[in-house]
Amino acid sequence: MTDLAIDVGGTKTLVVVFEDDQVKPLYVERFPTDSTAGPENFIARLAKVCSKYVDPPDVVHWGLCTAGAVDVSTGRLIWSPNLGWKDVNLHERLSQLFGDRGIVENDCNAAAYGEWSTRPGIDSLVYVTVSTGIGMGIVSSGHIMRGSHGFAGEIGHTTVLPDGPECACGRRGCLQAVAGGRGLSIQVERFLGKRLATEEIVDLARENKPEYVEIVVGGAAILGRFLANMIDTLDPAVLVMGGSLGKNPHYRRLVVDFFTKFYYRLPDKTVGIEPPSAEPDPCIIGVLQLSRSMGVRKSG
Amino acid sequence: MTDLAIDVGGTKTLVVVFEDDQVKPLYVERFPTDSTAGPENFIARLAKVCSKYVDPPDVVHWGLCTAGAVDVSTGRLIWSPNLGWKDVNLHERLSQLFGDRGIVENDCNAAAYGEWSTRPGIDSLVYVTVSTGIGMGIVSSGHIMRGSHGFAGEIGHTTVLPDGPECACGRRGCLQAVAGGRGLSIQVERFLGKRLATEEIVDLARENKPEYVEIVVGGAAILGRFLANMIDTLDPAVLVMGGSLGKNPHYRRLVVDFFTKFYYRLPDKTVGIEPPSAEPDPCIIGVLQLSRSMGVRKSG
Repeated sequence: MTDLAIDVGGTKTLVVVFEDDQVKPLYVERFPTDSTAGPENFIARLAKVCSKYVDPPDVVHWGLCTAGAVDVSTGRLIWSPNLGWKDVNLHERLSQLFGDRGIVENDCNAAAYGEWSTRPGIDSLVYVTVSTGIGMGIVSSGHIMRGSHGFAGEIGHTTVLPDGPECACGRRGCLQAVAGGRGLSIQVERFLGKRLATEEIVDLARENKPEYVEIVVGGAAILGRFLANMIDTLDPAVLVMGGSLGKNPHYRRLVVDFFTKFYYRLPDKTVGIEPPSAEPDPCIIGVLQLSRSMGVRKSG
Repeated sequence: MTDLAIDVGGTKTLVVVFEDDQVKPLYVERFPTDSTAGPENFIARLAKVCSKYVDPPDVVHWGLCTAGAVDVSTGRLIWSPNLGWKDVNLHERLSQLFGDRGIVENDCNAAAYGEWSTRPGIDSLVYVTVSTGIGMGIVSSGHIMRGSHGFAGEIGHTTVLPDGPECACGRRGCLQAVAGGRGLSIQVERFLGKRLATEEIVDLARENKPEYVEIVVGGAAILGRFLANMIDTLDPAVLVMGGSLGKNPHYRRLVVDFFTKFYYRLPDKTVGIEPPSAEPDPCIIGVLQLSRSMGVRKSG
């Protein structure tokens, strides 16, 4: 008997197979999401990949997450800017493959839940992913905080510098335009006329090239202060920062330094920024544990 | 049989007596808190005021709130900068007067719960009070979000302008130093050399006196954008802004205009800033409903 956890990313999809009730993966496979071929084509390829490792009747629980707005009550993907998909009933389609003991979740919510589930005794946790864009998931009293429209944690487009760099959304100074991976690249292209990958940009800042220091430290300062304000507002037990840029040692150190400078000291309140600890991936562990916590549904 | 709701403010204390299971007040009285005389002196005067309206054995539920850090599990006031009180077991002291069917709560949390309780069908609500200082309470899925140290909603000292005006806390550019009542007064005193009440300052800005417009509109712009970012982060069904400055029509209109400009549009997401609707006071209705929701405790 097996459980199945799937993270549908903008570029690659990660499939992890677990023995029922174990958290150590049995099998891990990545394949190209190729979202432009459409959701039906994707689901057919997903089924093929999974069939290498699991016999569908053996699947006890399955969980899938992706970036974008998800109606968790129906398992419908409402809107995913990354994939370019709108209104896809992923729960229905995956139930046809693996039975209806499954859940569909937003990837940041899943990651927050995954990190929370690896830290027994913690009541609340905030997970921030800093990658191409910036997103957040909140676990409060052991439950994912979703908000009234399912948009809680949508921090990527909060305005942090009203006259700052233009964002892909058409506005200015969004958090991810200032401090996210794509944001750093766009600023370098616009102000320095060079097309560089995010990692190269951070490396050049680490080597003290002043024009790169200005952009990278500027972004990290805003992000560190933003996270300090988040801590003051939400008061979680733990703040976890993941994502490729969030895990970059130099960028991370800068963000942590500014965070430490800005958060408000109150008696007995101690909090730092921790790296992700859920393996192989916070999202994967999150959808695995969420699917297991739902138990066995009606017609399973 | 009566219920008792008490809001201990920095200057005045509000006592409201309700008939058990009614939300229309029977009696309302305000008396000076005079916190410098100490908590025991205050409790003696509180008991005397209450004895005018209620016979202690007739009290079914009681609730008390105040600004500051409260351990709601024990009913202990940990620390109140407004009152200058530290580590006072208010639950124990009031239980001796009115029985132990009571609760002690932070005032912003109480106000959020009070506003939430007057809006049936709403799952989540954020209450922001803009007065001398700035505070926030969060209700999520019908529960007060307290955070891990009881400090959730402590937005007054989030840093919104790193090089902004000095705050009483010793740092610079805290939200309440930029956009709160005392913050506006201190800025006017420092930059314009005049000691004016907050309301006069807002009036002078409304009359288009440029030096006052700069300070007042500057504060409202930062606050409006902060609230927009809060909406993006927490996605409540309703955002309520109360407090004397938050209810000032001119300041309110400015804040709402900036809020509307900055919040991130997502499909089907609509949210505005509503005025408080719980009468006679959101905090009072909050502690009333919280005390009633706890039911009757063990040794009642």
